[in-house]
Amino acid sequence: MKYFDHPELGLSIPDVNRIIEEIFVEHGNGRIQMPPKIYVTFPHGDFRTMPAFVPSLGIAGVKVVNVHPQNPARGLPTVMAVTLILDVETGMPESILNATKLTDLRTGAAGAVAAKYLSAKRAVMLGLVGSGRQAAAQLAAIAHEISVEEALVWDRREEKAVSFCKEFKDIDCRPAPIEKACGCDIVVTTTPVRTPVVRSEWIREGTHINAIGADAPGKEELDPAILARARVFVDDPAQAIHSGEINVPITQGLFSPEQIAGTLGEVVTGKKSRKSPEEITVFDSTGLAIQDLAIATLAMKGAGWIDLPFD
Amino acid sequence: MKYFDHPELGLSIPDVNRIIEEIFVEHGNGRIQMPPKIYVTFPHGDFRTMPAFVPSLGIAGVKVVNVHPQNPARGLPTVMAVTLILDVETGMPESILNATKLTDLRTGAAGAVAAKYLSAKRAVMLGLVGSGRQAAAQLAAIAHEISVEEALVWDRREEKAVSFCKEFKDIDCRPAPIEKACGCDIVVTTTPVRTPVVRSEWIREGTHINAIGADAPGKEELDPAILARARVFVDDPAQAIHSGEINVPITQGLFSPEQIAGTLGEVVTGKKSRKSPEEITVFDSTGLAIQDLAIATLAMKGAGWIDLPFD
Repeated sequence: MKYFDHPELGLSIPDVNRIIEEIFVEHGNGRIQMPPKIYVTFPHGDFRTMPAFVPSLGIAGVKVVNVHPQNPARGLPTVMAVTLILDVETGMPESILNATKLTDLRTGAAGAVAAKYLSAKRAVMLGLVGSGRQAAAQLAAIAHEISVEEALVWDRREEKAVSFCKEFKDIDCRPAPIEKACGCDIVVTTTPVRTPVVRSEWIREGTHINAIGADAPGKEELDPAILARARVFVDDPAQAIHSGEINVPITQGLFSPEQIAGTLGEVVTGKKSRKSPEEITVFDSTGLAIQDLAIATLAMKGAGWIDLPFD
Repeated sequence: MKYFDHPELGLSIPDVNRIIEEIFVEHGNGRIQMPPKIYVTFPHGDFRTMPAFVPSLGIAGVKVVNVHPQNPARGLPTVMAVTLILDVETGMPESILNATKLTDLRTGAAGAVAAKYLSAKRAVMLGLVGSGRQAAAQLAAIAHEISVEEALVWDRREEKAVSFCKEFKDIDCRPAPIEKACGCDIVVTTTPVRTPVVRSEWIREGTHINAIGADAPGKEELDPAILARARVFVDDPAQAIHSGEINVPITQGLFSPEQIAGTLGEVVTGKKSRKSPEEITVFDSTGLAIQDLAIATLAMKGAGWIDLPFD
């Protein structure tokens, strides 16, 4: 059995974007097995268990990932993850990956694929609501698919937005008020809030929104009025209904599962698409186990590992 | 992060039986979190993902276990397992255990706990239907809870039953025809069959049966007429209905979930019990994630490990 502590080393963002796009093709064509992720609740957070099997890639396994918002105060990341890969022929445990950074990358890549297919424009002003690790992953990944002419970054703590922009030397990036960030061609939300921070009046016709932050029951970032104006695409309907951006509006009767316009897989396979330059599109990302398997296939090719006995 | 290749070394069967009994107390009192195990299907088998959290033991994690019946022809075990343990406070991955042998032991211990509480007699003739690794685990574990005066072992291949008995030098153990094995006070079935092998006319009044082999949709070992005569206890209703001994009779309309007499946890906590020496009792075991966590707490205390970076 192999253990990879830094499987993300050597990965290129364009390669990651491509394999994530491919995996959404598999999803759109129904050629995967992926039960909805399972939540177990801790006193200070939760963990999610995400099994899947992708026959075309010959890969199967399980990611286990926690979310503990108070971890940074202890000097630990909020999110940490491990992926176990099994041999498809025999079921034997094959590899274990530290998947903390892979999780950031594969989520960023899904946002990039969504922006590639759903953005009305190829050159954009991009607004970021939230400036944490996932905001950085989204901007880096999207910038490989679409020309980002300017990035406007809002954070509750402005100094975080300032230091965020310093990391992106090749992109014209600057802190901005939230209404300015939300007035961009593409808006990416990555906050952990439970009360919407993005108001409907800030969102213009033709905007594409990557709604990334809501990934558990009770979380929502967007005024539900935005969903009513938009066509809402999801990564996976069962997961999105349970824990995505649409979960709270659904429980409140402000959105219904029948209003989901389609999945990102259906978009990538051409079954669904943006219909006009004026419509607002939303990609509701919850994160799929198949994304974790896809990036694992790439990551295991390049990185060093530790051999472990398994006998 | 610690990796344990042989966490079973140093475990004593009585200690394992006790912690498994304790975990069924927690289950019976509803003090655990355990979503039903999730199945993913492979071309030649499947794998099951089993997350849980036991607050009283301060342990949480996920077992991943495959079942590949054709593996022995490749020189591999049918069943292999890994358990990932997370820190309850921070969600950080703490330990990874090779759980292949732990899986045998914790399943044997559940059978021993069931026999302790449900057997009509304290000294028994014990019949084994099937003589593989799990049969050995059951016999070893039960013999610590109940006096096994004689063990009658049936296997489709008689030479397997012969060599099985040679392993148990302290127990009067001998191969027998299946109807003799089924005529014992306690009957333990551990075969992977999909057509029942145990006939109702072989089972006497007062028998306790551990039905261990059926652990996936489509598997059954007992003539459903036995279930109609018996009080059927399960480890977990959701799992038993989906994949335990009762799963096929339920889909065929020969048994209904309302007929379940109770859970082993309810038995261990005294809420349910055998009502007379004459009644037939069945323990339908599917295997619980909390059993895997319970044995992991014990196993990690004694065994050696390899330190792995996780940064």
